[in-house]
Amino acid sequence: MKIAIAQLNPIIGNLTNNAQKIYEMAILAANQNVRLLLTPELSLCGYPPRDLLLNPSFIQSVSIELEKLAQILPPNLAVLVGTVEINQNAKIKGEKLLYNSIALLENKQVKQIFHKRLLPTYDVFDEGRYFEPGRQSNYFTLSSNFNDSNPLKIGVTICEDLWNDEEFWGEKYYEDNPIQDLVNIGVDWVVNLSASPYCVGKQKLREAMLKHSSQRYQIPIIYANQIGGNDDLIFDGSSFAVNRQGEIVLRSKAFQEDFTVIEFDEISKNLQPKIINLLSETEEEELWSALVLGLKDYTKKCGFSKVVLGLSGGIDSSLVAAIATEALGKDNVLGLLMPSLFSSEHSIKDAEALVKNLGIKSYLLPIGEIMNSYDKLLESIFLGSEFGVAEENMQSRIRGNLLMAMSNKFGHLLLSTGNKSEMAVGYCTLYGDMNGGLAVISDVPKTRVFALCKWLNRQGDVIPHNVLIKPPSAELRPNQVDQDSLPPYEILDEILERLIHHHQSVTEISQAGFDLETINKVLKLVIRAEFKRKQAPPGLKVTDRAFGTGWRMPIASRWKID
Amino acid sequence: MKIAIAQLNPIIGNLTNNAQKIYEMAILAANQNVRLLLTPELSLCGYPPRDLLLNPSFIQSVSIELEKLAQILPPNLAVLVGTVEINQNAKIKGEKLLYNSIALLENKQVKQIFHKRLLPTYDVFDEGRYFEPGRQSNYFTLSSNFNDSNPLKIGVTICEDLWNDEEFWGEKYYEDNPIQDLVNIGVDWVVNLSASPYCVGKQKLREAMLKHSSQRYQIPIIYANQIGGNDDLIFDGSSFAVNRQGEIVLRSKAFQEDFTVIEFDEISKNLQPKIINLLSETEEEELWSALVLGLKDYTKKCGFSKVVLGLSGGIDSSLVAAIATEALGKDNVLGLLMPSLFSSEHSIKDAEALVKNLGIKSYLLPIGEIMNSYDKLLESIFLGSEFGVAEENMQSRIRGNLLMAMSNKFGHLLLSTGNKSEMAVGYCTLYGDMNGGLAVISDVPKTRVFALCKWLNRQGDVIPHNVLIKPPSAELRPNQVDQDSLPPYEILDEILERLIHHHQSVTEISQAGFDLETINKVLKLVIRAEFKRKQAPPGLKVTDRAFGTGWRMPIASRWKID
Repeated sequence: MKIAIAQLNPIIGNLTNNAQKIYEMAILAANQNVRLLLTPELSLCGYPPRDLLLNPSFIQSVSIELEKLAQILPPNLAVLVGTVEINQNAKIKGEKLLYNSIALLENKQVKQIFHKRLLPTYDVFDEGRYFEPGRQSNYFTLSSNFNDSNPLKIGVTICEDLWNDEEFWGEKYYEDNPIQDLVNIGVDWVVNLSASPYCVGKQKLREAMLKHSSQRYQIPIIYANQIGGNDDLIFDGSSFAVNRQGEIVLRSKAFQEDFTVIEFDEISKNLQPKIINLLSETEEEELWSALVLGLKDYTKKCGFSKVVLGLSGGIDSSLVAAIATEALGKDNVLGLLMPSLFSSEHSIKDAEALVKNLGIKSYLLPIGEIMNSYDKLLESIFLGSEFGVAEENMQSRIRGNLLMAMSNKFGHLLLSTGNKSEMAVGYCTLYGDMNGGLAVISDVPKTRVFALCKWLNRQGDVIPHNVLIKPPSAELRPNQVDQDSLPPYEILDEILERLIHHHQSVTEISQAGFDLETINKVLKLVIRAEFKRKQAPPGLKVTDRAFGTGWRMPIASRWKID
Repeated sequence: MKIAIAQLNPIIGNLTNNAQKIYEMAILAANQNVRLLLTPELSLCGYPPRDLLLNPSFIQSVSIELEKLAQILPPNLAVLVGTVEINQNAKIKGEKLLYNSIALLENKQVKQIFHKRLLPTYDVFDEGRYFEPGRQSNYFTLSSNFNDSNPLKIGVTICEDLWNDEEFWGEKYYEDNPIQDLVNIGVDWVVNLSASPYCVGKQKLREAMLKHSSQRYQIPIIYANQIGGNDDLIFDGSSFAVNRQGEIVLRSKAFQEDFTVIEFDEISKNLQPKIINLLSETEEEELWSALVLGLKDYTKKCGFSKVVLGLSGGIDSSLVAAIATEALGKDNVLGLLMPSLFSSEHSIKDAEALVKNLGIKSYLLPIGEIMNSYDKLLESIFLGSEFGVAEENMQSRIRGNLLMAMSNKFGHLLLSTGNKSEMAVGYCTLYGDMNGGLAVISDVPKTRVFALCKWLNRQGDVIPHNVLIKPPSAELRPNQVDQDSLPPYEILDEILERLIHHHQSVTEISQAGFDLETINKVLKLVIRAEFKRKQAPPGLKVTDRAFGTGWRMPIASRWKID
């Protein structure tokens, strides 16, 4: 029996577009004698639809679109489509109004509906907000020969349903274990329809986990993932299959739409090896692809084709310009060079070298005279005060205003270029360099920004050499460098990793060999910068804990401040 | 038996401060021969602690603080303290790591722990993210005479636990009904320890609901609520008690800390009438108090004492200035008047009249020359294009920059002054008038802004009369008024109410008599403005559906756009 994976890139809420894509994949599948087509979790509305799910008319539209899709799919092809179902008993039983479901479409009908059983409510996931967990094992039967003899029993799981193998994790995250239930029922194989967001190294984790489960339960698993960027989340695809020995027998492409076919041999009851695309060679390569996809999809799905960004000659804006150029093409990227009195000569030169290397457009807009006009207006009020944060930020906000003026005038999406280390400690200006529709590298720590640029330069300079070797500086006052205010980035980033990702206490970090005063300083900076992060643009999530949807901190709080 | 309610205003995460407050209330209670002291939900860490709960060292600190508090409380007083408990079986059973709990402290011990059973996961609530629901009925026994004879049985519920009376709501929201279980056990009365956020009319709803439950189950209920502003959420207090006939027998003050005592008569098995503070006379009075508290607490809990805001002479900034003056005192409010070429003469006059009425400080900072410097710099690039959104927004962002310069220089918190109607349709400038640490009236629709100002002027003009009668205008181009771009506010606000609060479809709204084209225009504006709202400051929530924590919409989505 041939099974195909439609690794789709949906647009959230654009039901017609998404249904059309499923239809096209179904035609492709039918032409190759595929019996069963898999599409990702919530493939009809895209994942995550978030509060669109609170609109009854949205739910109704999904339902109508599903029926319409069932009508036009080719005969003799069963298709699993991700959809939202109303929980008819919600108000009587006191349950949530919806299910996160998979519909089995065949012969112009919605033949069966399966409900997701394990609903994630950590990090960026809010599924408990909308959905009631399914309580039954999900499977269906299908014959390869179309006459219903010797039907195969196929288990259906939805994303999180397979993320509870307590042998693999060493602990249980949910009470139920859907794959165990399906094995008890005696299914021939299990499909998993996912919308699993990317973070560095996630695919290795997924494969290790499902290899473990397939070996443990002696059962083949076909894993179909969504691809594409949806706001802060990047879905990397990399759908794959493991046979009952736990070997990878198929791997779809990463970071792009794909259509792959695999065959289940009914004699050996196992999956046959098929095309196995390689994983990225390095984490940098993987991260680069993720950021390019995230930027591209956010831009296009928001209806833009061009972007604008400020080029300071520093490494962050240089990297973002390179990502944008790869994502959208050099003709669609505009850089603004906005030097001030405090900009060093090399800043302009480095930015100009970058512009040349990338072949993008740029304008030079010195901000000196605008600065003077602000200074003049505020002169009498600021009289007697020293040059400080107010004056520094004013420059950044003048640049932010100019960037937005270009965005508003010519319809370019503004990209902000701050990295995760800056965002963590608040070394950035709200309404200034934080301005933008998308924060491209706000989940990439500074040390990783350097690593990415070095990787990018592996076959010759894309990022000008001087950008990589000069000390980072905001250039908002004379001879300023980042390390005037912050610990060295190697130290800062490791402390941040321990604080943010590992929830370590000051004591634990100190015991790992870091200076207590430095740790406390960093912690206070992180807490105090919460108000800035609250107003930051969506940032592409590439780690297991990004600022953004999955980071929910109070602002007016005092823990560890006093 | 005397029972006291400590209606406390905690600072999120400031465990020492919060424990101290509980201690002080306990001393007060002991001095009045109170036997049982009630404090709000999570009174030790403040509600909502959000992702602070993900830090193991935070949880440990809470636990240590609870033990310390138990040690110092007066003898012969039982105290119910809101706290967080570790779920010891989480990893074995596949459950969440924590419980939202109430600890019964008595005789230097933590005598009993009760877990919240119904965990809200709608609107602003994320309790499923952190907590496992309790599965047992929560009650304890207590004797009034200290020798354990004739003990009373007291049922303990935590906030949402009492919000599932299916008779009152006409439907069930949760499977369990904790009060029913407690009645079956035969408790003498029920306490409810809450942190229930304010919205207009919420107290009436709470009282109606608990009156219904007390009558239905023939049981007295004592309801203790948190007060104070925590980021976007305002807790109004208004703790109250209903006797077994469903009559209000006690009501604490609204919008301020309070300590009230009530007596349970052991013969009649009922609560004795006590002080009953009046509810606000009008919704405007209530809303005013809420906004004043929200502004005051956000400012103070963030460590500020002074605020700055832009005064355009319009009604929104006038109202916010009045709220700030009430909250912080006239000496702590600074207004900036920043007229441009397009500002009408009356704008300055109206703003100056407001400054005079309120007695606050102000500066006049005309932005014409700064505008000229931007125009000059961009002249060659913008050559041939028409005056448009870019030029309009630039003015707003110049003002935003000046406001932040004042904030950074003098340590004033910047308040943004946009109303909910503007925020809904995006009639506001990101990085311009949206700038601020707090959006004071971003959940107040324009029509309600007018109503509030009229109420405020009931005993003479606070808001200058001309501000109330002139047509609203952004004054970013010659002779501009809001109604050039938007439907009349009476119509706009009703369409928005139906879209945002009632999740009505275009068809439904149209059937209610609104023009189809207008509805579609409004809907598109709302969807397109999502990117602005994503970067807005926290806004004080005063309705059942505010933009902010409880509004989780995708940006790069296409539902109803194409």
